[in-house]
Amino acid sequence: MSKQNRRDFMISGSLLSATLLTDTAFANDNETKTEDKYPPILDSILKRRSVRHYASTPVPDKHIRMILEAARMAATSGNQQPWKFIITQDKSTIMKLKEACIENAISRFKGRNNPTESQLNEQRVETKAYYKKCFSALVYVTVLTDNESTYPSYNHWDGPLAAANLMIAARALGYGTVHYTDSVPSAVTQKVLNIPDRYERVCFMPIGIPIEWPDAPPKKQYKSFIIHNSF
Amino acid sequence: MSKQNRRDFMISGSLLSATLLTDTAFANDNETKTEDKYPPILDSILKRRSVRHYASTPVPDKHIRMILEAARMAATSGNQQPWKFIITQDKSTIMKLKEACIENAISRFKGRNNPTESQLNEQRVETKAYYKKCFSALVYVTVLTDNESTYPSYNHWDGPLAAANLMIAARALGYGTVHYTDSVPSAVTQKVLNIPDRYERVCFMPIGIPIEWPDAPPKKQYKSFIIHNSF
Repeated sequence: MSKQNRRDFMISGSLLSATLLTDTAFANDNETKTEDKYPPILDSILKRRSVRHYASTPVPDKHIRMILEAARMAATSGNQQPWKFIITQDKSTIMKLKEACIENAISRFKGRNNPTESQLNEQRVETKAYYKKCFSALVYVTVLTDNESTYPSYNHWDGPLAAANLMIAARALGYGTVHYTDSVPSAVTQKVLNIPDRYERVCFMPIGIPIEWPDAPPKKQYKSFIIHNSF
Repeated sequence: MSKQNRRDFMISGSLLSATLLTDTAFANDNETKTEDKYPPILDSILKRRSVRHYASTPVPDKHIRMILEAARMAATSGNQQPWKFIITQDKSTIMKLKEACIENAISRFKGRNNPTESQLNEQRVETKAYYKKCFSALVYVTVLTDNESTYPSYNHWDGPLAAANLMIAARALGYGTVHYTDSVPSAVTQKVLNIPDRYERVCFMPIGIPIEWPDAPPKKQYKSFIIHNSF
């Protein structure tokens, strides 16, 4: 990242945090001031955060149901609805996922670094601490698409579209989520959750009350995303 | 689709339409009755529809801005934000897109069917009518991801995650959208909008007030999507 870009990031990020704190203004850049209020209904989109540490507060079944109802109402090519959602709440299964993630991460670390015993121990402590937080939630959803759906070549759109709905619906009900991909490897969920080969994993996602709501990470300037009419 | 599956679709679809009409209940299947209300804040997700015909009502700039702000706050791998959004409002550019889509569709029809002159004329009439509706909106957003982003192998998630936010935010403000893929071919938008090769198109999307809000298409039973704990 260039210095200029980094400064843009930081400026934009600070302004974003500041405006989000008001809960009503929408994120402004300095080049496009506006007095318009952001409708409350859109707060859930702006206030969604990637949450990696959860309180042990139960999530009622009715909320899980509402969140999954929202996910399955996502746009889907030719109405094919190619999704499966694995809702994992069983504590011993969650512990198996955690242990398998730790084992996988340590094994990859060994393969990359040829570490000394002391480096390996240090890495083990860090990895365990990371996954302790990662698996502190009481509910996990594994989002899948079915390679035997009506139009499987469109699943790469349909999968994340449902995942986005899931995250926004969870936020609207007061819950944090995070869209895990490599941190919780697909091979781990496939093995521990016995996922048949015909399913493609989209992501792995906790649902829960955050220990704290993280700030939004620094965001690029709004105008850097926008092209008017055509290139 | 088997008869049983088709019946499940239809039953589920009717129930869904019935519950959505109340605007407060959330979609039930007959196997899991509940009295819980769907929170109004989630209505925009349940009431999003694929809209393919638009009124000529202008969309204020501030709404376009809010919708794009929501899109760019999507979850994104390592905060890379690999998106570009082309906002096309220029009428002559929109007409060029329409003409190019018609030409593309007719050319594909010829290639597939070796049609007689009369079949070709009939197809031309149908195709023109289809794209007249498709291009009846006043605002279009082409969602792109940048192959030169920080983590391009994660763009296939980040792209649709932003598109989903865009559709929900638009619905929250009263606008219809539709997630066009092949109906408005990527080759057409690339040519007419001069999109450089480094960008991957996610989708092409109108934003506007619908001529009418379509019913939700028939949806599969809720329980058909859900696996508890593991396979």
